Amino acid sequence: MTALKGNLIFGQSGGPTAVINSSAAGVFEEALKHPDIIGKVYGAAHGIVGILQENFYDIGQEDPEELKLLLGTPSSILGSCRYKLADPAEDDTDYKKILEVFRKYNIRYFFYNGGNDSMDTCDKIAHYLDQQGYECRVIGVPKTIDNDLWGTDHCPGFGSAAKFVATTTMEVFLDSRVYDRGMIIVLEVMGRHAGWLAAATALAQATGYGPDLIYLPERSFDLERMLEDVSAIYAKNNNVMIAVSEGVQTADGRFIPELVSEVAVDAFGHKQLGGAAQVLADYLSSKLKAKNRGIELSLLQRSASHIASGRDIEEAYRVGAESVQAALAGATDVMLAFRRCDGSDYRIETFQMPLSEVANKEKVIPQEWINAAGNGLTAEYIDYALPLIQGEPKQIKVDGLPRFARLRKIQAGRPG
Amino acid sequence: MTALKGNLIFGQSGGPTAVINSSAAGVFEEALKHPDIIGKVYGAAHGIVGILQENFYDIGQEDPEELKLLLGTPSSILGSCRYKLADPAEDDTDYKKILEVFRKYNIRYFFYNGGNDSMDTCDKIAHYLDQQGYECRVIGVPKTIDNDLWGTDHCPGFGSAAKFVATTTMEVFLDSRVYDRGMIIVLEVMGRHAGWLAAATALAQATGYGPDLIYLPERSFDLERMLEDVSAIYAKNNNVMIAVSEGVQTADGRFIPELVSEVAVDAFGHKQLGGAAQVLADYLSSKLKAKNRGIELSLLQRSASHIASGRDIEEAYRVGAESVQAALAGATDVMLAFRRCDGSDYRIETFQMPLSEVANKEKVIPQEWINAAGNGLTAEYIDYALPLIQGEPKQIKVDGLPRFARLRKIQAGRPG
Repeated sequence: MTALKGNLIFGQSGGPTAVINSSAAGVFEEALKHPDIIGKVYGAAHGIVGILQENFYDIGQEDPEELKLLLGTPSSILGSCRYKLADPAEDDTDYKKILEVFRKYNIRYFFYNGGNDSMDTCDKIAHYLDQQGYECRVIGVPKTIDNDLWGTDHCPGFGSAAKFVATTTMEVFLDSRVYDRGMIIVLEVMGRHAGWLAAATALAQATGYGPDLIYLPERSFDLERMLEDVSAIYAKNNNVMIAVSEGVQTADGRFIPELVSEVAVDAFGHKQLGGAAQVLADYLSSKLKAKNRGIELSLLQRSASHIASGRDIEEAYRVGAESVQAALAGATDVMLAFRRCDGSDYRIETFQMPLSEVANKEKVIPQEWINAAGNGLTAEYIDYALPLIQGEPKQIKVDGLPRFARLRKIQAGRPG
Repeated sequence: MTALKGNLIFGQSGGPTAVINSSAAGVFEEALKHPDIIGKVYGAAHGIVGILQENFYDIGQEDPEELKLLLGTPSSILGSCRYKLADPAEDDTDYKKILEVFRKYNIRYFFYNGGNDSMDTCDKIAHYLDQQGYECRVIGVPKTIDNDLWGTDHCPGFGSAAKFVATTTMEVFLDSRVYDRGMIIVLEVMGRHAGWLAAATALAQATGYGPDLIYLPERSFDLERMLEDVSAIYAKNNNVMIAVSEGVQTADGRFIPELVSEVAVDAFGHKQLGGAAQVLADYLSSKLKAKNRGIELSLLQRSASHIASGRDIEEAYRVGAESVQAALAGATDVMLAFRRCDGSDYRIETFQMPLSEVANKEKVIPQEWINAAGNGLTAEYIDYALPLIQGEPKQIKVDGLPRFARLRKIQAGRPG
């Protein structure tokens, strides 16, 4: 096979993670090893938006030492976006512009790092370029703390978020038990449709320092039943800690803040507003006459690179580097996915998933990994998740604080 | 001087920290080195409450390896309390009981680890015992993330909380800037009367990844002026991050949630409830028409032992161990405090502060360390705080998660 010569562009999309920049480092470092095939390596500002606006940087001009620091730098170094492309059958304006930009800059390798929506974007672009007879290798690079990408054992970003969530849960558990009086703790964890990350509180539970109850979007939520669960534990222990996924909802689709605000007019004499954690904590307090803390892990859970999983960092880098290798070998319109190897030791291998099979699907926790009462996880979940949080980050620190990568971001396009 | 022979009791009081157990380890390990003088080393359950209830543990029966793990274990291992003793001139019931317990168990060394209130408790007990002619060495061991204890350069617990706050602020800063659209971030940090910990966000600012504006209880808060500050920065950057101390209040004593709820009936058509972070973020959003995140660092900031300051851990241990040495040498009715040595390198020495000088006073940030506009810190604060967050914790991990100390807690009293 003749090598496809041309330039490469890489973009980051969707919510950032602690390790999305590790994948960027993997793509960049591997791509820069092949200057005879890949002439220029570009980084798109704000994902596909940067491509549409011809706003991208020449990564070859970055200091290699700074690229290495990407492994300890959270968030999206290039900027991200939540831009959704139209169906090309209805409106192909963006696609035409992308093709125009790709022709103008001779882009033959397009890598897009993101979640479900981004894989859909990738797939649509790959098909459009193919239809137009423009040869370009399009590769989806997986990432999401939600861990809900279809077809892959797990997603880069999840292990680090899970390690932060489990560690923090253990610490908060200890803190919440110091006084000789009752306390209700409600921890709210990200995850709109899949409970993988809220379930990481079960890793803390397995150590003896975790929540009594865990509620996930995979099971429909019943406020009365939860109150029964909580009351029983509180009566016994004078203490209760619960973890809820932000996406928890009733069978008829009402989320916790909405649900509680309806019943809370009675409880408080006014409507309750706010996130699930505080609303639920206040509600339980009013019922059990106990002090409470509602704790939302907010942006911390996806940006805590100081407690990232060492394994997650390595794997995020690897999937970036291997994406380049796959594209050089001819792959296109695929996402690189992880498969767990057989055997008692944790090992993974990567394989290629057609983007059409990944796009717009969501992987949720198997029902059989959730206990019968719907308020906890089984040992299968622990066995699945525990290997993903192993290893400590080797973050460079200066004066006790992280030294993040500083890119020069030399403009290589013609933004206007 | 003849050595005072007898038993020792140690208690933890007030809000826990990431390193209060390091001080416990310091007291325990040092005390256990002198079995000829200190016969038994007890740990009081829930501070002074445990003493009143004869509820305490025999620390000599603990596994020394577990005591070492206290250096990586956050929160109060013995349990804490917020019990305030009465003025003995008005009601000496508790004091009589304490004396009775001390006589019964031959307690001649009493160590109390806490903040302002605890130093007051210590002082009152020391005076009462002295008046009753009962010889006992009473030592206050400082701790508070608020850093507001009088007379000491800084307080064990502050450095670790400050390191967590600064690191997290840097990470959230990066996360909040990824999209090509406006964003308002409000970070709420603990500190009711003193802004030392909220000011730690200035350490993040000094790295280039921190808040634009910092509001502290040391200056009276003006919502209109803050809106002007925020609007100017938002107009320029399309992004603004602010840090507020939970104790921020107006000149006439109104806190942010109360203040905003008054003006917010206009802004939202309903009263706003919740903590300062979300209330303020919602308010600013309504004014600037931008997305927002209100983030309360909640219990995380005082329990994050995984990112504790290595120096803080060492100093917390040291102040515990040196308290025992001081008591053995005859000191009583004092708190061990830190003094910074002269010279460009950071070094501290400990000295004894009379408890009466410490009790019921609060050390706030010097006005000259706050900028003229009252929305940021000067270089003096950075020079002061930066040495306190140096060094990484050497926390033992098992399967990627912290291994906290597990004490046997052999009952040595007669609770009931």
